[in-house]
Amino acid sequence: MTLCLRTTRSLIASLAVLVLPTARAAQAQQPGIAAYRAAADSLIHAATADSSAYRRLGLMVDTFGHRLSGSASLEAAIDWILDSMKADGLENVRGQRVMVPRWVRGDESAELVKPRRAKLAMLGLGMSVGTPKAGITAPVLVVGSLDELKERASEAKGKIVLLDVPFTDYVATRKVRTDGPSAAARVGAVACLIRSVASNSIRSPHTGMTRYDSTAAKIPAAALSVEDAAMLHRFQDRGQPIVLTLRMGARTLPDAPSRNVVAEIVGREKPDEVVVVGGHIDSWDVGQGAMDDGGGAVGAWEAVRLMQRLNLRPRRTVRVVLWTNEENGGAGARAYADSQAALVGKHVLAIESDNGVFNPKGFVLASSDSTAAVVQQVAGLLQAINATGVQRVTESPAADITPLAEQGVPTMELDVDGSRYFWYHHSEGDMLDKLDPAEMARCVAAMAVMAYVVADLPEPLPHATN
Amino acid sequence: MTLCLRTTRSLIASLAVLVLPTARAAQAQQPGIAAYRAAADSLIHAATADSSAYRRLGLMVDTFGHRLSGSASLEAAIDWILDSMKADGLENVRGQRVMVPRWVRGDESAELVKPRRAKLAMLGLGMSVGTPKAGITAPVLVVGSLDELKERASEAKGKIVLLDVPFTDYVATRKVRTDGPSAAARVGAVACLIRSVASNSIRSPHTGMTRYDSTAAKIPAAALSVEDAAMLHRFQDRGQPIVLTLRMGARTLPDAPSRNVVAEIVGREKPDEVVVVGGHIDSWDVGQGAMDDGGGAVGAWEAVRLMQRLNLRPRRTVRVVLWTNEENGGAGARAYADSQAALVGKHVLAIESDNGVFNPKGFVLASSDSTAAVVQQVAGLLQAINATGVQRVTESPAADITPLAEQGVPTMELDVDGSRYFWYHHSEGDMLDKLDPAEMARCVAAMAVMAYVVADLPEPLPHATN
Repeated sequence: MTLCLRTTRSLIASLAVLVLPTARAAQAQQPGIAAYRAAADSLIHAATADSSAYRRLGLMVDTFGHRLSGSASLEAAIDWILDSMKADGLENVRGQRVMVPRWVRGDESAELVKPRRAKLAMLGLGMSVGTPKAGITAPVLVVGSLDELKERASEAKGKIVLLDVPFTDYVATRKVRTDGPSAAARVGAVACLIRSVASNSIRSPHTGMTRYDSTAAKIPAAALSVEDAAMLHRFQDRGQPIVLTLRMGARTLPDAPSRNVVAEIVGREKPDEVVVVGGHIDSWDVGQGAMDDGGGAVGAWEAVRLMQRLNLRPRRTVRVVLWTNEENGGAGARAYADSQAALVGKHVLAIESDNGVFNPKGFVLASSDSTAAVVQQVAGLLQAINATGVQRVTESPAADITPLAEQGVPTMELDVDGSRYFWYHHSEGDMLDKLDPAEMARCVAAMAVMAYVVADLPEPLPHATN
Repeated sequence: MTLCLRTTRSLIASLAVLVLPTARAAQAQQPGIAAYRAAADSLIHAATADSSAYRRLGLMVDTFGHRLSGSASLEAAIDWILDSMKADGLENVRGQRVMVPRWVRGDESAELVKPRRAKLAMLGLGMSVGTPKAGITAPVLVVGSLDELKERASEAKGKIVLLDVPFTDYVATRKVRTDGPSAAARVGAVACLIRSVASNSIRSPHTGMTRYDSTAAKIPAAALSVEDAAMLHRFQDRGQPIVLTLRMGARTLPDAPSRNVVAEIVGREKPDEVVVVGGHIDSWDVGQGAMDDGGGAVGAWEAVRLMQRLNLRPRRTVRVVLWTNEENGGAGARAYADSQAALVGKHVLAIESDNGVFNPKGFVLASSDSTAAVVQQVAGLLQAINATGVQRVTESPAADITPLAEQGVPTMELDVDGSRYFWYHHSEGDMLDKLDPAEMARCVAAMAVMAYVVADLPEPLPHATN
């Protein structure tokens, strides 16, 4: 459905008298929110009329590839985005300088030595230390959980510990990746391997950040493919001694300069009040980082570009923020929140897309009840793309907006079909073809409508939780 | 359900007077076939009572790894199988000598040079020639089909041709892999890449045999991952010139000796009449060849071992044949058929499992109507494991039994859930964890019941088609 913009804008103007101070008042506003339907439909139509978001994402990831913090490809991609945003006509386009960790993978390999020689599929974990040049050759102890590691602590000394823990959900299984290496070091292991945190595998290892506990020795840490972890576990179950050689050239260089990308449509009435919409521009150094989180970053940018193209300038400022260094540090998110410390009360809402721009279902929201009531009504405008769901959570739903949530800003993440996300996450398989142009277009539509309408409401969403 | 073997055998004995000379007679025999229920149930029960087939497969593929023709690992696996079959108490256990091609992959890589430097995920195609040591660096022409290659023949000279053809079904898409390189050579290409023949990808290239046409130059041929093929196609669609360097150390050495594995339960009444049940023991040189076709080979072996363990000695001989060199030549299948040329009329049925031992649905059969009528009744005994389907085809359903089919032997393949087969086929992902112990056990049950009952029928299945 094509909508006349003039009609849309006059409908919006007629809403200027509405006030939404409390939950009760918000609930009473349904007819008011409904008056945004024309604007919402025009955004949905513009987003879904073609594959421009997907094409732009493809151009970015094909041109620059993956974008690890501290890499030349990340900074080149940021330069290109800044130039493109200016060409799009966005306002206050700028790079916000941030110092980021610079971890470098180097050459790496894992070779089975006993019971037979074979190359294993592995990826070092982000922020891991390396091995000596000759590698570490040691017997392997396989355990099925962090608890089993504690029970078998006396067997771990001098060994390479493999944590072969099946994927359940990300938050639970990620703990093995973040905490496993230091847990292994504390019981005397010389290196730590984990089963990749992944819900599918074609012998595809999945990297991700590990975190060394300051009380334990830093030992090299890597992910094996699900297949290789299972094979080693079977060797052990049969009583066959396992020996392997792990070689990792990983090292951490001095911090490097990077940038958050920031651009705006300045609010027509309350330019100092802000709705943030974004994703993160950095990725791991495998695949193309198309799903995590090229799609979220370009999708947020496209959402704001569409408003600009349709001359939809809301009452408040809509600010797209593409954070740097989400994957291995979070320096971009902290830098943005720190820079806004005095202005955080003016942040009406922060939206992130960081679950892949798969088919959108709605939003996951951390906010007060009164804010949720309004958001639910706004999401109702997304019926045409079936993305009206609003799921409430108590903690910030996405990493880059957590520092804002901690200061009371309502935060939300785009909620999408997550069935295939952990097939590709942090692996070489995270490339453009995993995303679908029409699904990505609907994600853009959902972010655009939510950001625009919340930015244009006569009264700001209430801050603080409940 | 546990069955008393004594009862089973006396039920079978009571069937000795049955005669099944024609389709009409066969159709009349339903009560006769039904009398095999006790034997069938005992085989099903024994097969599904534990995970012994899966454990044996795991021991084989973990111990020996993949098993390409001409490799030490294939011959070591064959030695182990022969020894194990003797220990199982199978009869006439022997290795049938076969000379097989010896293709060696060597080191290989594909590196994108323009529009940017990046390593691509590739696997050389089986039987490909190599490149000069420095590799071949050339511009790339991407085409979407063999037809488009013909249309754009004038653009191919001096280029590396990439056939980026989406997977539809295996027979159709495989043609690109087998015929593409010579088609590209004929229009002047210096090397040929194909999009992997695969229905899923986590940047996982899939190898497989290519076939050079004697009228065309032999040019190096490799598969790119689906992701990389798509990326190169996008570069071309954007008008960005593509250059890449292909390096392949592939070479074909003189033929090497290998063996078909043959073992029997000799028939108690008609030992010269034979039911063959088998799979192929060789694999590609990636992953473990667990799905293709370690599971089929070990499954067929287990089916016969169960008969032996249950003292189910049929009227005719049941012969397990584990063919060598299915993947890159078919020398094992030809050698077996040649050795049986004078005895092929005594082959009552040949069964192969080569679609992965996934959940069994029944059988795919190439035979006369009269044979099909009997087979359908036998399949009816598999109701307990829901594997009663009999799908008719006009050509031999599996590669290793084709030389027998060509001489009039009824042939059948175990029919299984094929939904994930081409996710892992010919890739590093073909490892044990892709199979399920309970599904494999049901495959063993299906093969055991079909082979046993057909081998025991009072009259042999009719030969020749219709």
